[in-house]
Amino acid sequence: MGEQFLYLGIYSANNMYSFTELQAIVEKSFGQLQLPNEPKNLYEPISYTISLGGKRIRPVLCLMSANLFSDIIDKAVKPALGIEIFHNFTLIHDDIMDKAELRRGKPTVYRKWNNNVAILSGDAACILAYKYLVQTDAAVLPEVLKVFTTTALEVCDGQQFDMEYERLSLVTEEDYLRMIELKTSVLLAGAAKIGALIGGASMVDAERLYNFGRYLGLAFQLQDDLLDTYGDPKVFGKAIGGDILANKKTFLMITAHKLAAKENLAQLQQLMKDAELASDEKIAGVKQVFDEVGVKDIAEGKISYYFDLALAELSKINVREERKEVLQHFAQKLMGRNR
Amino acid sequence: MGEQFLYLGIYSANNMYSFTELQAIVEKSFGQLQLPNEPKNLYEPISYTISLGGKRIRPVLCLMSANLFSDIIDKAVKPALGIEIFHNFTLIHDDIMDKAELRRGKPTVYRKWNNNVAILSGDAACILAYKYLVQTDAAVLPEVLKVFTTTALEVCDGQQFDMEYERLSLVTEEDYLRMIELKTSVLLAGAAKIGALIGGASMVDAERLYNFGRYLGLAFQLQDDLLDTYGDPKVFGKAIGGDILANKKTFLMITAHKLAAKENLAQLQQLMKDAELASDEKIAGVKQVFDEVGVKDIAEGKISYYFDLALAELSKINVREERKEVLQHFAQKLMGRNR
Repeated sequence: MGEQFLYLGIYSANNMYSFTELQAIVEKSFGQLQLPNEPKNLYEPISYTISLGGKRIRPVLCLMSANLFSDIIDKAVKPALGIEIFHNFTLIHDDIMDKAELRRGKPTVYRKWNNNVAILSGDAACILAYKYLVQTDAAVLPEVLKVFTTTALEVCDGQQFDMEYERLSLVTEEDYLRMIELKTSVLLAGAAKIGALIGGASMVDAERLYNFGRYLGLAFQLQDDLLDTYGDPKVFGKAIGGDILANKKTFLMITAHKLAAKENLAQLQQLMKDAELASDEKIAGVKQVFDEVGVKDIAEGKISYYFDLALAELSKINVREERKEVLQHFAQKLMGRNR
Repeated sequence: MGEQFLYLGIYSANNMYSFTELQAIVEKSFGQLQLPNEPKNLYEPISYTISLGGKRIRPVLCLMSANLFSDIIDKAVKPALGIEIFHNFTLIHDDIMDKAELRRGKPTVYRKWNNNVAILSGDAACILAYKYLVQTDAAVLPEVLKVFTTTALEVCDGQQFDMEYERLSLVTEEDYLRMIELKTSVLLAGAAKIGALIGGASMVDAERLYNFGRYLGLAFQLQDDLLDTYGDPKVFGKAIGGDILANKKTFLMITAHKLAAKENLAQLQQLMKDAELASDEKIAGVKQVFDEVGVKDIAEGKISYYFDLALAELSKINVREERKEVLQHFAQKLMGRNR
């Protein structure tokens, strides 16, 4: 790997790669990934999960963060793949724990193979993530490893809290935000900081990119909650109302419980308990309470709050303003604001 | 951590720590290990598994290998703990996959908690292993990481082959030896090499210690197979004949199949198929075939072969002969030859 990226001939005026170009680099690099052939049941599930695709947000953000400080991003490519492999490891194991049948429309690993294959190939993916992550300059390696390992443990914390919260009748807004920060945001944050470190950022700027990723991750996850109830099914890609049907304690539900007047609250709790109710009636009923409380506006306010914080972190970074445009577009694209 | 080890006042004449002294350092360091309190169900199973104890062979070998080249072993302590934490991670996940109820007489993690807790706390232990492993000199860090990650993936390969072989009617001796090498030996080998690198060994000597650990691991695993059938139950610590009752394709069973005369082979296959047979009759019957074939002598020969190879690697290492004594004793102790 390496040199080919220098000759892609796709530099923009600022020598900055676009989202699409970085996605292409990630896909091409994954295409060149040589996993062992044997044991088949250990490595095939990893290739399978990687091949399910996705937007490759984490490795793209890693490369983009490196690119913010350096025109040449080759040294960030393998660590970026490592971060995406780590993300895939969490998907393989989370799907067992969450009993998820499908992932991007295809059977999950434990369904396509079995539990043991999913446990062990997930383990191998976690170790493989480190194998790629460490392929970077020795000068930044200790710091890169520290960020990655801290982040990886926090992702486990987040999954554990998420599972525990399922068994609670309600969680506080503070606990919920901390949980989604751990489960979703810190890996975006870590990807950004690792890219920045490899690109040659100062520790202060690397930390700003960490916060950029962290706030953006929070905005993104809250928006995902919002779209699950208020999204356009054609754009959202999943059926609307899934969280409501699963009685998920999302930001919307927590806010509704916090702010609903007495009779609205009783209605909400009744709707959540009623196992006989038809799906569309339950969704419509809960949505009605949400609307009366004004949950949508509150959620949108919170999303904007975190989104603005993310951009504010970016604005403080000590590089020429025009180099930051790609990351500004990345943030907008992630939030679906440029469609 | 660190300084306290310099002042233990337990240097031998050669400034070499004994097995018992190194075990004490490992136990003391584990006692000082500060795992996060929250989420409880993520970190308690890790502390629980570590507290089940064991001989701490891997971290002791790591420290002993560092000590071979350096009087001061402080820098190897955290990586040694990392290796033991990794070993504990494999135990937590293997016990789910192998449906093992007990580990050192106590309920396994998935039995004491549940599957999800065992999966996720195992994941956290794997990442935690890296957290401790990387706490060493930057100069050797890339090589230490390379050895560890290669080894960790091989351990997964070994577990996968082991599970696959369970469903085969028989495996070749070559495949079996490769499987136990991956599942057991390479982690001993990796522990030795990592210790050597941290202690300041040349690459050539570090590789010799790798092979020392690898051959010793093979001898140890084959001896474990042998003792499962021919051991003294008071010394072995488990009931004798467990492998025979489980129809395990161990070195003994593979050798018996390879060398048994026609009628002995038929008898062996009948004994393995007969689900009605009482346990003691099955053990006695299979042992009789083993005895007629001379399996015990062949296994002892193979064990000596690998044990001698291990010592030969040690003898080639470029340090004063008297410094090697502790590792020679370690090898003998591991094989129960100094009791």
